Amino acid sequence: MREVVEKKVLSENDRLAAALRQRYRDEGILCVNLVSSPGSGKTALLEKTLAAFPKDSAVSVLTGDLQTDNDARRLARYGFPVRQIVTGGTCHLDARMVDRHLNEMGFHGPGILFIENVGNLVCPSSYDLGEAAKIVLLSVTEGEDKPLKYPGIFHRSALMILTKTDLLPHVEFSAELALENARKIHPEIDTIALSSRTGEGVDLWMTWLGVLQQKVQHQTAAAIT
Amino acid sequence: MREVVEKKVLSENDRLAAALRQRYRDEGILCVNLVSSPGSGKTALLEKTLAAFPKDSAVSVLTGDLQTDNDARRLARYGFPVRQIVTGGTCHLDARMVDRHLNEMGFHGPGILFIENVGNLVCPSSYDLGEAAKIVLLSVTEGEDKPLKYPGIFHRSALMILTKTDLLPHVEFSAELALENARKIHPEIDTIALSSRTGEGVDLWMTWLGVLQQKVQHQTAAAIT
Repeated sequence: MREVVEKKVLSENDRLAAALRQRYRDEGILCVNLVSSPGSGKTALLEKTLAAFPKDSAVSVLTGDLQTDNDARRLARYGFPVRQIVTGGTCHLDARMVDRHLNEMGFHGPGILFIENVGNLVCPSSYDLGEAAKIVLLSVTEGEDKPLKYPGIFHRSALMILTKTDLLPHVEFSAELALENARKIHPEIDTIALSSRTGEGVDLWMTWLGVLQQKVQHQTAAAIT
Repeated sequence: MREVVEKKVLSENDRLAAALRQRYRDEGILCVNLVSSPGSGKTALLEKTLAAFPKDSAVSVLTGDLQTDNDARRLARYGFPVRQIVTGGTCHLDARMVDRHLNEMGFHGPGILFIENVGNLVCPSSYDLGEAAKIVLLSVTEGEDKPLKYPGIFHRSALMILTKTDLLPHVEFSAELALENARKIHPEIDTIALSSRTGEGVDLWMTWLGVLQQKVQHQTAAAIT
């Protein structure tokens, strides 16, 4: 019974996500979906990211939390449209929430849409939001075994960002082992080591995003012609 | 429809958890349920905890993960009965899983049962496992705002353990602010600052456990007489 309802919920989500994906393609929107444990540094990374864009860039953020609009307030300081999605008890964002908030904020492409999911390595992995890529963050304080323990999200993510690398001298963490574990789950996963505090790796991340954006724009152009 | 099924699942879980609670009471078992984000140090704390018990203590551990038996293998080295619960895709332990594994391991009181939940601040908060206390761990690398963002688990926990305090000199984290936020959600919550690496706070944690165990034994004695 529970499985039947869950399947129904997921297939309804897939239908809505497919419509979002089509909309992103039609409008030339690059949408990325950031997923991690609570406190792995999604918001800090987005702060660095927004700060790196020229002020007139077409960039927006949807940020999800069970409660509070702390993250939206932190991110709004960078001058781009930011909207908080408060999920109440729900442990992930879904396509319906994204669709509603995009409509309410009047977001249109071309541009980049960052989605910061609820802090959770489990539930967000099953919910397609129409994104071009899921991106999983793993902080160096969390241990190298997380890709093996939470394989779903590492399997579905195009990129793993190792965050808080400034703490590497103070923790027992082997970036090599974390990468090896991630590749056991997803051999083609890209990886970037990054510290939002020192700025290490932020250039690489911006380059990675730029390459993905070009791909999306090619798809949009190909669809128009 | 989804809400109806969720309600049914939760009420069925509550029924099983009540039976577990009665069993713990009858047998003089102290059961505590450890909840945190992935990588906040639940297993490291249990390693320190098991090491602190005399070898002939009646102590057992159930440890939950989506995949791998890494944690059970880590914890088995201390000589106490440890059992891994692999949940597959499920984002939390439930009373049925606990009941089945307790029966399979032939666990009987009096004694202490540690349950290490799946790494997740959201889903485990709704599932009663019959425990005497939920204990939430928050590592100092995760940020002070987590009690406000994940109020459910902080509201339901008797104790908040601030972990990885050895990293305090290297992160921007105010223990005072974290505690203030936790008390906004749950004014009576106990707190212990602890580092499994240096051992700071472990004595306090063992004392806290001892006090709770005495309470449970009084309840059992009162029920018998």
